[in-house]
Amino acid sequence: MRLTRQSSYAIRTLVYCAVNSPDLSHVADIARAHAISELFLFKLIRPLVEAGLLETVRGRKGGIRLGRPAAEITLLDTVKLTEENFAMAECFEGGGDVLCPLADNCDLSGALHEALAAFFEVLDGYTIADLAHKRTSLRRRLGLGLEELSAVTAH
Amino acid sequence: MRLTRQSSYAIRTLVYCAVNSPDLSHVADIARAHAISELFLFKLIRPLVEAGLLETVRGRKGGIRLGRPAAEITLLDTVKLTEENFAMAECFEGGGDVLCPLADNCDLSGALHEALAAFFEVLDGYTIADLAHKRTSLRRRLGLGLEELSAVTAH
Repeated sequence: MRLTRQSSYAIRTLVYCAVNSPDLSHVADIARAHAISELFLFKLIRPLVEAGLLETVRGRKGGIRLGRPAAEITLLDTVKLTEENFAMAECFEGGGDVLCPLADNCDLSGALHEALAAFFEVLDGYTIADLAHKRTSLRRRLGLGLEELSAVTAH
Repeated sequence: MRLTRQSSYAIRTLVYCAVNSPDLSHVADIARAHAISELFLFKLIRPLVEAGLLETVRGRKGGIRLGRPAAEITLLDTVKLTEENFAMAECFEGGGDVLCPLADNCDLSGALHEALAAFFEVLDGYTIADLAHKRTSLRRRLGLGLEELSAVTAH
């Protein structure tokens, strides 16, 4: 059981934008910082923009930034957008062709859905701001410049 | 995010043995009931036997059965044996080569581990007996014979 790469990099992208705020962030820089392709990152960003977690600014000096305050974007908001599949087990998938002979008479589904709800409840309690609060050390690790103290305290 | 096929079929195998109890179950029959290969099932069963969730009876009339009462085998017992990987995201994997530049300074790990603990806690509250309690209809779906009423009530 694990999160998809999409979820992991979506969270990292939001953290990047949070620690780089109020500056706009650039896909090329984020991709370089995390050693992933720009194409993968572009695909990843699209649902985040559509859902309003990120917004794009066009133009020569354009870029991306958080679509709302980091403290108002939960990990659950992110993971729900990027996880392709919350079926948990293939026995519950498919429309007409149910693979498992027990599927419509099995209590595993209920147990796993209850477990997933508990998992989600925890993720709903964490925000991008929680992950981005070690701003100075995260900026250093992401290759972002040092900020003036005045600029830091302004956020 | 999803369980591995191994977990899903391990749970199904234990449910099969539970509803077929006290008779011994046969790998060929379980594989046929779930349309999976016997080789896959043999590999799957090994850690369950080693952990005492299943036991094998050798000989011409041999087979497998639960290693302890179905009510004493939780879904967590099973999933912990069959899930290869509870790292949740690749950023926490690997020994020396940490892929993510944030890895040792990131609070995502703590959030995901807390969420996983909540997931596990729910699975710890369900047993194979909970999944096997609709014995008659499950037996029919698994191609097991009808039982005499006296035999059913004896278990």
